[in-house]
Amino acid sequence: MKKKEFRNLEVCFSPANFPFYQNKQQSIIVIVDILRATTAICTAFEHGVAKIIPVATLEEIYKFKQSGFLIAGERDGKVIEGADFGNSPYNFMGKEVWNKTIVITTTNGTQAIEIAKNCSEILVGSFINLYALCRQLIKENKDVIILCAGWKNRFNLEDTIFAGAVAEILLKEANYVLNCDSAMASLDLWQIAKNDIMGYIEKSSHRHRLKKLGLDDVLEYCFTRNITNTIPVYNDNYFVEISKI
Amino acid sequence: MKKKEFRNLEVCFSPANFPFYQNKQQSIIVIVDILRATTAICTAFEHGVAKIIPVATLEEIYKFKQSGFLIAGERDGKVIEGADFGNSPYNFMGKEVWNKTIVITTTNGTQAIEIAKNCSEILVGSFINLYALCRQLIKENKDVIILCAGWKNRFNLEDTIFAGAVAEILLKEANYVLNCDSAMASLDLWQIAKNDIMGYIEKSSHRHRLKKLGLDDVLEYCFTRNITNTIPVYNDNYFVEISKI
Repeated sequence: MKKKEFRNLEVCFSPANFPFYQNKQQSIIVIVDILRATTAICTAFEHGVAKIIPVATLEEIYKFKQSGFLIAGERDGKVIEGADFGNSPYNFMGKEVWNKTIVITTTNGTQAIEIAKNCSEILVGSFINLYALCRQLIKENKDVIILCAGWKNRFNLEDTIFAGAVAEILLKEANYVLNCDSAMASLDLWQIAKNDIMGYIEKSSHRHRLKKLGLDDVLEYCFTRNITNTIPVYNDNYFVEISKI
Repeated sequence: MKKKEFRNLEVCFSPANFPFYQNKQQSIIVIVDILRATTAICTAFEHGVAKIIPVATLEEIYKFKQSGFLIAGERDGKVIEGADFGNSPYNFMGKEVWNKTIVITTTNGTQAIEIAKNCSEILVGSFINLYALCRQLIKENKDVIILCAGWKNRFNLEDTIFAGAVAEILLKEANYVLNCDSAMASLDLWQIAKNDIMGYIEKSSHRHRLKKLGLDDVLEYCFTRNITNTIPVYNDNYFVEISKI
């Protein structure tokens, strides 16, 4: 049975704004980097990865590599040297991820994780686990902050419309309210985008960045809802499927 | 005659994101704090103020007061102690501003000015000088960054829809393009808001903050377009009407 008291949903458009959110320790933080880090992480868990260790710097990831870990990473959309996996969600669908631990670093996604890592609860969100994530949030019945990875500490459209999609579900199906202008804006933008996401996202700057790099083959996948029920949760210094802790 | 080359319009949602904009020195920076700092500054120039000196801290403004300057300021919407003027635009409409220099500090607006003050050109924008501002931007034919003051380094709706209003005019009437997701989002939100701004802004968190403080009498004025042709420009350490330099 739903409790009568209301829960707050806030949206933070980039890691640079996150220090100015007051309610972090009482909230579930949902990290989002639709193109492509959090979509790739959810994909890896759908395909049986055991753990994903996010690191913020290249220095750290190469130390893990030297210790024998599998690594995956990108900077500015390009795969880093020596990586065992590309950074596309498609690279995390094979049997080579099954039961493995993979260390990952990305331009924006892992920076967002870094800034949130001392918060009490961090989940990973993407369109591919949208409903599963929302069910979990509703079940836990806590305040929520969606932390968009953005692009280099700036706003981006793809993470924002995802936040709007979450807002739509939480407002409709549970006792959430929006007391935050960025959450309201996310919901408004999602209403514009939702019936033709690919058309809407066509104008986004990151979509063009990926196109230039020949990496836009994953776009349709990244905006497909509910491919997986997996919910990666941050535990100590790594992500694990929520049912495993 | 318009030049054929395109100019960029970018939008920065809060001072916290401004360091991550690369094109600052080549751009005109338009500072926006619709509720209420930049609307008040434009109002003061419409009523003949000579100079407005923005300062970021209470410490600084009280030093100016001790030196005999007129001061105006607020923190969290409330007028600061010892101020000669309130912080409502209505306080800057009388003959007591004519030909005077006024020192001002506000929760968000003057913080945004502070972070931009080393940029080569800074103008002040508000709905009340919207068209005059856009005409000036088009005349100068440079890249533009609209710097929203936001609310304590977070996004707000009122500054954002103003940015969208500027985007609409510059796209329609001149050779501007949007290569920036926040500019695109601003334009989309403005399209939702523009036919009923007061209805749209009803949901904004700052509007409720002002209402609680009994300061929302200025709302309709702050969203009225084109009351004045004045364009305040930052020059050394103060604002002055652009025609006076």
